[in-house]
Amino acid sequence: MQLLDNLSPNDLHAEPSILAAQAGKHVICEKPLARTAEEAKSMLDAVTKAGVKHMTAFNYRFVPALRLARELIASGKLGRIYHFRATYQQEWIMPHYGTPPIWRLSKATAGSGALGDLGAHIVDLARFLVGEITTVGAMTRTFIEERTAPGGPTSTVDVDDAFVATAGFASGAVGTLEATRFAAGRKNHQVVEINGERGSIRFALERLNELEVFWVGEDPRETQGFHNVLVSEAYHPFWKHWWPQGHIIGWEHTFIHEIAHMLDCIVNNKDVAPYGATFEDGYRAALVCDAILESAATRRQVDIG
Amino acid sequence: MQLLDNLSPNDLHAEPSILAAQAGKHVICEKPLARTAEEAKSMLDAVTKAGVKHMTAFNYRFVPALRLARELIASGKLGRIYHFRATYQQEWIMPHYGTPPIWRLSKATAGSGALGDLGAHIVDLARFLVGEITTVGAMTRTFIEERTAPGGPTSTVDVDDAFVATAGFASGAVGTLEATRFAAGRKNHQVVEINGERGSIRFALERLNELEVFWVGEDPRETQGFHNVLVSEAYHPFWKHWWPQGHIIGWEHTFIHEIAHMLDCIVNNKDVAPYGATFEDGYRAALVCDAILESAATRRQVDIG
Amino acid sequence: MQLLDNLSPNDLHAEPSILAAQAGKHVICEKPLARTAEEAKSMLDAVTKAGVKHMTAFNYRFVPALRLARELIASGKLGRIYHFRATYQQEWIMPHYGTPPIWRLSKATAGSGALGDLGAHIVDLARFLVGEITTVGAMTRTFIEERTAPGGPTSTVDVDDAFVATAGFASGAVGTLEATRFAAGRKNHQVVEINGERGSIRFALERLNELEVFWVGEDPRETQGFHNVLVSEAYHPFWKHWWPQGHIIGWEHTFIHEIAHMLDCIVNNKDVAPYGATFEDGYRAALVCDAILESAATRRQVDIG
Amino acid sequence: MQLLDNLSPNDLHAEPSILAAQAGKHVICEKPLARTAEEAKSMLDAVTKAGVKHMTAFNYRFVPALRLARELIASGKLGRIYHFRATYQQEWIMPHYGTPPIWRLSKATAGSGALGDLGAHIVDLARFLVGEITTVGAMTRTFIEERTAPGGPTSTVDVDDAFVATAGFASGAVGTLEATRFAAGRKNHQVVEINGERGSIRFALERLNELEVFWVGEDPRETQGFHNVLVSEAYHPFWKHWWPQGHIIGWEHTFIHEIAHMLDCIVNNKDVAPYGATFEDGYRAALVCDAILESAATRRQVDIG
Repeated sequence: MQLLDNLSPNDLHAEPSILAAQAGKHVICEKPLARTAEEAKSMLDAVTKAGVKHMTAFNYRFVPALRLARELIASGKLGRIYHFRATYQQEWIMPHYGTPPIWRLSKATAGSGALGDLGAHIVDLARFLVGEITTVGAMTRTFIEERTAPGGPTSTVDVDDAFVATAGFASGAVGTLEATRFAAGRKNHQVVEINGERGSIRFALERLNELEVFWVGEDPRETQGFHNVLVSEAYHPFWKHWWPQGHIIGWEHTFIHEIAHMLDCIVNNKDVAPYGATFEDGYRAALVCDAILESAATRRQVDIG
Repeated sequence: MQLLDNLSPNDLHAEPSILAAQAGKHVICEKPLARTAEEAKSMLDAVTKAGVKHMTAFNYRFVPALRLARELIASGKLGRIYHFRATYQQEWIMPHYGTPPIWRLSKATAGSGALGDLGAHIVDLARFLVGEITTVGAMTRTFIEERTAPGGPTSTVDVDDAFVATAGFASGAVGTLEATRFAAGRKNHQVVEINGERGSIRFALERLNELEVFWVGEDPRETQGFHNVLVSEAYHPFWKHWWPQGHIIGWEHTFIHEIAHMLDCIVNNKDVAPYGATFEDGYRAALVCDAILESAATRRQVDIG
Repeated sequence: MQLLDNLSPNDLHAEPSILAAQAGKHVICEKPLARTAEEAKSMLDAVTKAGVKHMTAFNYRFVPALRLARELIASGKLGRIYHFRATYQQEWIMPHYGTPPIWRLSKATAGSGALGDLGAHIVDLARFLVGEITTVGAMTRTFIEERTAPGGPTSTVDVDDAFVATAGFASGAVGTLEATRFAAGRKNHQVVEINGERGSIRFALERLNELEVFWVGEDPRETQGFHNVLVSEAYHPFWKHWWPQGHIIGWEHTFIHEIAHMLDCIVNNKDVAPYGATFEDGYRAALVCDAILESAATRRQVDIG
Repeated sequence: MQLLDNLSPNDLHAEPSILAAQAGKHVICEKPLARTAEEAKSMLDAVTKAGVKHMTAFNYRFVPALRLARELIASGKLGRIYHFRATYQQEWIMPHYGTPPIWRLSKATAGSGALGDLGAHIVDLARFLVGEITTVGAMTRTFIEERTAPGGPTSTVDVDDAFVATAGFASGAVGTLEATRFAAGRKNHQVVEINGERGSIRFALERLNELEVFWVGEDPRETQGFHNVLVSEAYHPFWKHWWPQGHIIGWEHTFIHEIAHMLDCIVNNKDVAPYGATFEDGYRAALVCDAILESAATRRQVDIG
């Protein structure tokens, strides 16, 4: 067994991954899978043809609280889903950081900006938790249009600093998606909310051991309210491997779970899906991202797939 | 001096308000000002012609924390504004409530659903805090399409149970707007967030005495973070009239402040704007609401004004 | 019917209240009921002899969330109580306030410092929620021993700026009590926690519409956690008189509930106890406060009653 | 270089550690260092005589947020310290867990109960952050006095299930200490608070990447409030070794920092103190724990050292 873990910039996702697949190696590729859906499709085709295991590294699927959220929703406990709401906010390219024109700010290298880097994560979580997105309507912004390297040349920023979108789901649910690197004070502020007929869920990445859950009709009436669930019990997802309750884990553990899953799939010939994201999932996320850019450019809602 | 405080359902906003104005009475009218922008315009024309004081009862402008937010933004302390984000969620027409077909669920009476009732508030707050909205892109949903009165007939619900929208601002800022009555566990969950070049602000109505504020470069570097400001000091807006610090006020106080402002404007011939919402503000909010419905219907972004 | 509402400083609690009672008037007296338990006893004797209604104005009994807490505990839903924990923190006599030697800082007038002003409240809540305190062990501190009036003389502060105590309850529960006016940033920070065999409760006064509740074995196992209960439903204590769910009330409403209760007791000849605090309750709280001072002075645990 | 990392139950702390020291090996020993101060003293004497490096594994000194708290306090930025407040609550021996009579519930093996296991941590944090404790007054409780092994014998529990204490500090500060394993819903709920003349600090272990900080007079007046500091910047303690800002670490990282510190001290002949806890610190914590038990037994305050 050999495995390529492709951690390179986005413009180096396709070729090495395809070559590795053609050589019979399994492949994990960082997100976003590619700069465009078309490029992602070529990668999906390659791994499919090669018959190797493939994973898009959407590591947040491996947060215990989000896996729990998935299980609650998939089991039907939240009933019909009405709303999905996700925002992913960082601040590290704001003016006071003086960020130079790095590869993440170039379309040729990155494909897109906050959309591909942060937005792809929440698009994947939307699909993972609530199902396919069928329509999007979006706006993008590039707040700083030129950036200068220290002692170097000035480059035009040709990717989005932020996007906002409405989203319609195959299930009938409706939602909002947003990513930005211009949210002062927000270090890694990813928040995901779901409202269903029988309950609601809220997750925030900077408190990744917690999940807020509201149940309709389950609590004693007088004490109904959002439960602050500390997802750290031995019976919670992934926690049989970890510490006593309340002794929290961190961001890196999502990668431990992710890689362990991939290795388990390879060694025991299991399916990467549905708990891991495959190249198919990476491709489908890319379709949504492309649609967001198209919608922002055309000012029209865009249907997907 | 005489004053009409029009608290009736939306279809009774225009005629009594116009008649009162024509009779020389000042008018406060509940929000949304009217069922459509056109109807709101007729009301604005009437009060303007009559020369009376007029106020649209957007009472959340009179939350001390939101007035403080306005002052911070208007003074330039947050610098250029990048993002506005508001959601207003309730749950009282969800299936488990068994809500019958009341007037708020009828287009003829209410004009729209969650949009006019809840959305109008956050549209007004967007304008109050960040300035004019120039473009919207929206989706709406009616999750329960028929409702039955106890022992009575079944009616079709012809208004939105929820809407989501993207919004572009005259200033270049971009944002999301959302209102729903289908968010399980959310009793009166209005959240407003603003991100600017020099700071960020977050407000939640169910904790209306608090404002979260982040300043870029103001805090000692090691202890930078969102400040949880308990807006209850004698020097905070409206608080010279209230209790010792930390002894909180509630929802009704927004109306006390609002009415006091209107009476002050009448008695001392002051301008209702910019701290109070006039019929002009009610009309402009209605333009945005109409654009949201048009965008949802046409699947295109709609420009305003 | 006539009623004295005695809002004067502590040294004017006894005489006017006793005279009013002797004249057949009902009496509400601010807390602490008196400067010492002995003085409180004389007041209790007077109202008892006169047969009038009497109330010590422990207004926090009339916070809906705390009344709900009382009902949950009294009904046995929390089972055996193990722990009570209360702290009441303010900051308004810290050095940066430059507070002069006001009556609250004088033993002759106030009886004690943070203890009588803030501590009496949490002692009463301890008794209201969990039952009689039978033993205390305490320490006190006076951090600023002399204060000077602007342009005036310097006085010695002969009351506590803060106290901390351990408390044993008749039920076997154990707890901590603390009050201070030297907690920087704490405006009106009263927090009460109870841990029982079947659940736990947490309350914070600056978010007085909320109650955090944990139930043992009631929640679905995977989503057990503290419930954030927004105590604002029509079926919650006092809320049939107020607003739609989630539209919060404030500090002053505790007084509205308190006075309404007293008037109801007078007009309809009902008992002030157990929901209202009587002079008996004021006296018993004073016994605990006296014991706290005695314990701090003798460095021994002191039994009560 | 050889190092013993002694992770055994408390009754196996002394002998192996002393033997290792006598053999010239460095020693890390789990907390509490010993069952009694006397036993701890024998260990301290042994490592001192042997001249080896020694560490008591008070790992919470190595939480970045608590190291930051230490630096803020030690630098004088909080000014004179008035209050220290710490509680450490778990729930895993409550009735609904059916916990059998394990070694942690036996005095012969463990020395004490919640006191030595949880209380020792917060006693050490008190010393680490605010300095020596000179006086304590305490109460203890054993809520379940007999426990039965499944299919086995019944044992008497001869250690505390919980303790509460008041504490006087050499600096004049005053505080409360508490530990319990009977707090329903509290998984690993350690909370530490400090109030000083120029600011306040709050830390909660289940959100160990965060520190709440209030500064007197540092914030713009209108937006003063507790800062929620996400302690994850490259310039924060230990974070030069970790991830991008906001990508949190977990409980295990405290051990990584701890062991790295010990190895650095050994390899580079540095002092374990003051950032690491030595056997001296373990001994001094044991003195406080012994005094707490003595105070609970005698019902008197007990002075230390």
